[in-house]
Amino acid sequence: MKYCFGVDIGGTTVKLGLFEETGEILDKWEIKTHTEEEGKAILPDIAQTILAKLEEKQIHKEDVLGAGVGVPAPVTEDGIVNGSANLGWNYKEVKKEMEELTGLRAEINNDANVAALGEMWKGGGAGQKNMIMVTLGTGVGGGVIIAGRVVTGAHGAGGEIGHICVNYDETEVCGCGKRGCLEQYTSATGIVRLAKRKLENETRDTMLVRDTVTAKDVFDAVKAGDLVAAEVAEEFGIYLGRALANLAAVTDPAVFVIGGGVSKAGEVLIPYIEKPYMESALFANKEVKFTLATLGNDAGICGAAKLVL
Amino acid sequence: MKYCFGVDIGGTTVKLGLFEETGEILDKWEIKTHTEEEGKAILPDIAQTILAKLEEKQIHKEDVLGAGVGVPAPVTEDGIVNGSANLGWNYKEVKKEMEELTGLRAEINNDANVAALGEMWKGGGAGQKNMIMVTLGTGVGGGVIIAGRVVTGAHGAGGEIGHICVNYDETEVCGCGKRGCLEQYTSATGIVRLAKRKLENETRDTMLVRDTVTAKDVFDAVKAGDLVAAEVAEEFGIYLGRALANLAAVTDPAVFVIGGGVSKAGEVLIPYIEKPYMESALFANKEVKFTLATLGNDAGICGAAKLVL
Repeated sequence: MKYCFGVDIGGTTVKLGLFEETGEILDKWEIKTHTEEEGKAILPDIAQTILAKLEEKQIHKEDVLGAGVGVPAPVTEDGIVNGSANLGWNYKEVKKEMEELTGLRAEINNDANVAALGEMWKGGGAGQKNMIMVTLGTGVGGGVIIAGRVVTGAHGAGGEIGHICVNYDETEVCGCGKRGCLEQYTSATGIVRLAKRKLENETRDTMLVRDTVTAKDVFDAVKAGDLVAAEVAEEFGIYLGRALANLAAVTDPAVFVIGGGVSKAGEVLIPYIEKPYMESALFANKEVKFTLATLGNDAGICGAAKLVL
Repeated sequence: MKYCFGVDIGGTTVKLGLFEETGEILDKWEIKTHTEEEGKAILPDIAQTILAKLEEKQIHKEDVLGAGVGVPAPVTEDGIVNGSANLGWNYKEVKKEMEELTGLRAEINNDANVAALGEMWKGGGAGQKNMIMVTLGTGVGGGVIIAGRVVTGAHGAGGEIGHICVNYDETEVCGCGKRGCLEQYTSATGIVRLAKRKLENETRDTMLVRDTVTAKDVFDAVKAGDLVAAEVAEEFGIYLGRALANLAAVTDPAVFVIGGGVSKAGEVLIPYIEKPYMESALFANKEVKFTLATLGNDAGICGAAKLVL
């Protein structure tokens, strides 16, 4: 039996998993992310807990295929990070350091890309090789997988689905400094923006309350038959569905996997995205499935483990 | 010395090249494409001329790495075409038939993707592994190369850059049945449309003549300092530059290669595309080059040859 580790580095905790090469999770645990002093302890802490786990489980290094690591930053093909605000890192040769610290092979990739790989391996995209994952959370992230490989790009910046421009007339500025990014309409905060705009001049009865509305409220109200909420969901779906249709023209996926906090609304989301997608997609791209992410917080460690398999 | 063949199947002629594995072209020639009777003679004709060339050059089959073939249709990862209007083909197992007919390894891909691969190997994208080629001809085609591999997609329909929707308010219908496709504004015919719309209500002096204007006329007039033509070029560039910025957010290329008939206008094109691109691109995607395709009609045979190297 061979083993591998999946490591998902976040700004608060590092999630770790010990896997059999078949994909079975043998153990999961977390350690704190020490971001102080430019995050210099993060990789040594990870190496230490991995080596301790090998000791605990009486596993020999030669039976370990490696450790995959997801990082909240762009990562080059050589496993280098040029800076991560969340971790305090500046330039860091993550692959090289991890390999030196653990004596194990290491593979590094961006956390959103890694989560997509996890969903392709064991989640919503299982069995597929061409997949686009969209993560609808505080922001909108994504991971594009083509022929089974994560799209990293020339600068490690592939998969930034949230910053596709979908509205050149937008006046408010996105966190990235541009205007009209997909994230401004389809993240949890984007959905709140759409709802607030809608509620400004709304005279019909609705369950939604302008001052306190959340993305969850919107989809809860949709499920309860609220027409105003349904119109907010439609607007959300048009922005997202059209953007995905444009992506599909170029990448031709077999499946879209919808994840992130917003996706906890469940299956109710899918038709709102799928209808405008189908109206806008090329004929050849209509044979595609829309599914929800299924791995939740485990997507990161699963995808990270898959990096070394 | 090892050899390979590059084959570029068009609706009128089949272009062929015999290459050394270093990329040197030893011989180039063409045969007629016999599309009658569902194009049943096309692959046997190609096999015959390849075997005759081996005989002529006294090359043994064991010294041939294979034959790459570009086809004007979507091609699956298994080398299957589900129909090509230009060639008369219905379902055809192109890879399997080619290998049986020639006794050589064969690799098949879509012609636009193959041309992109050619430009990456020996043309405008030489030395890069992450590249987007845009072919501005009668239509707009493209090829996306990520980590050195052509994006084929789940249905062999990757790289259809021309059918990204860039204007949801368009009333005229594109050849694909959708409205507002990039092709409707940036192909040779699209540029003519933009020019004619502009000239309808134009009172300023211009070299452009509404009834006969061509894409070449537009860029010739731009070079001569014609302000009306420059505004048409600006509009063309905004559509194309913005679409490429959205693609870059997801694929993060190192270089865009502009090819096709429209690109014969030369370097004058580039700033019109690059300026709106830079205004719209994510920070991480601004470190990118725009270049012109350099291989012309040889891009197809070069890229096809590269498929087997």
